Amino acid sequence: MKKSLGPKTVAFPLPAYLVGAYDEKGHPNIMTAAWGGILSSSPPTIGVSVRPTRLTFDCVTHHKAFTVSFPPAGLYVETDFAGLASGRQRDKFAATGLTPVDSALVSAPYVAECPVVAECELYKTLELGSHVLFVGKILDIKAEENLETDGELDPLKVNPLIFAGQGYYRLGGFLGKAFDSGHRIVNREAE
Amino acid sequence: MKKSLGPKTVAFPLPAYLVGAYDEKGHPNIMTAAWGGILSSSPPTIGVSVRPTRLTFDCVTHHKAFTVSFPPAGLYVETDFAGLASGRQRDKFAATGLTPVDSALVSAPYVAECPVVAECELYKTLELGSHVLFVGKILDIKAEENLETDGELDPLKVNPLIFAGQGYYRLGGFLGKAFDSGHRIVNREAE
Repeated sequence: MKKSLGPKTVAFPLPAYLVGAYDEKGHPNIMTAAWGGILSSSPPTIGVSVRPTRLTFDCVTHHKAFTVSFPPAGLYVETDFAGLASGRQRDKFAATGLTPVDSALVSAPYVAECPVVAECELYKTLELGSHVLFVGKILDIKAEENLETDGELDPLKVNPLIFAGQGYYRLGGFLGKAFDSGHRIVNREAE
Repeated sequence: MKKSLGPKTVAFPLPAYLVGAYDEKGHPNIMTAAWGGILSSSPPTIGVSVRPTRLTFDCVTHHKAFTVSFPPAGLYVETDFAGLASGRQRDKFAATGLTPVDSALVSAPYVAECPVVAECELYKTLELGSHVLFVGKILDIKAEENLETDGELDPLKVNPLIFAGQGYYRLGGFLGKAFDSGHRIVNREAE
């Protein structure tokens, strides 16, 4: 039996993206975003929602670009800090010890210590109330070497940080292949 | 050293939402969506991206409502099937054995077997190319009882399905609290 919890921002799982952008003076900044996700296949886009009061809002509006770095499980403290602190008061790269890397494709920095990153140019925006959705066109995905199995990024090697409920978690065990496991039902129907 | 993988739809983690909607005749349908996420806090919204060729696109456009059911790890076969099959050819509830529940708040069905569900009215849409983003205003979150710890949904009790790379995964071990772990760096700075 289900009970009502009211209108809340609940979803499973949530990401913990590190959104990288330069401020108006060209200083690199990161902000943690749990609101967002991949939004289309062609063009490949990823959306991140940002409050207009955030420094990242000004950065992305000014440079029309951002990156999304996918933090590994081991960076949960740094990722949480980048959501708590403001780039207006702190140099978050210096405070965390993370390393900004200039993207060669867009005017935005990504995080060297994250195994996989997306470099994006601003494609569309959508005002939603508390947040503005920035939709970025993914120009490139960059990943550390040795993270692949059979030519595809292996999530257990990427070891991504996952946000759920009120905390950070690791990725757990493999259950089954996508675009494959469901054929058991397809085939059952065909019998 | 990072290498370029090109413009691809890569992000960690991805969700595997079961989007519930009625067709024009009122038959319940589900579609699996990995493109989407929570997009704003006030109003609380969740976005799901749908190809215009999908039955779900017609359903949501007609009824101006949808649900998002968050499948548990044990439903990875059913979830994969709901992404492979089309509601135009199959009754996906009948094929999977999942049970549609009429929402009392919106004109859309949710999945009884999913421990947590969101009931949404269509709030905004955004055309992105291959997909149209449907942004739903979350009117209510409903959850099974006994999933809470200290008054909050406990992700390890919810046991959500996670999509990553080319497969389905469980949620793994707890790392640390959100809006808390980062204080180690805040406090280090203040010393």
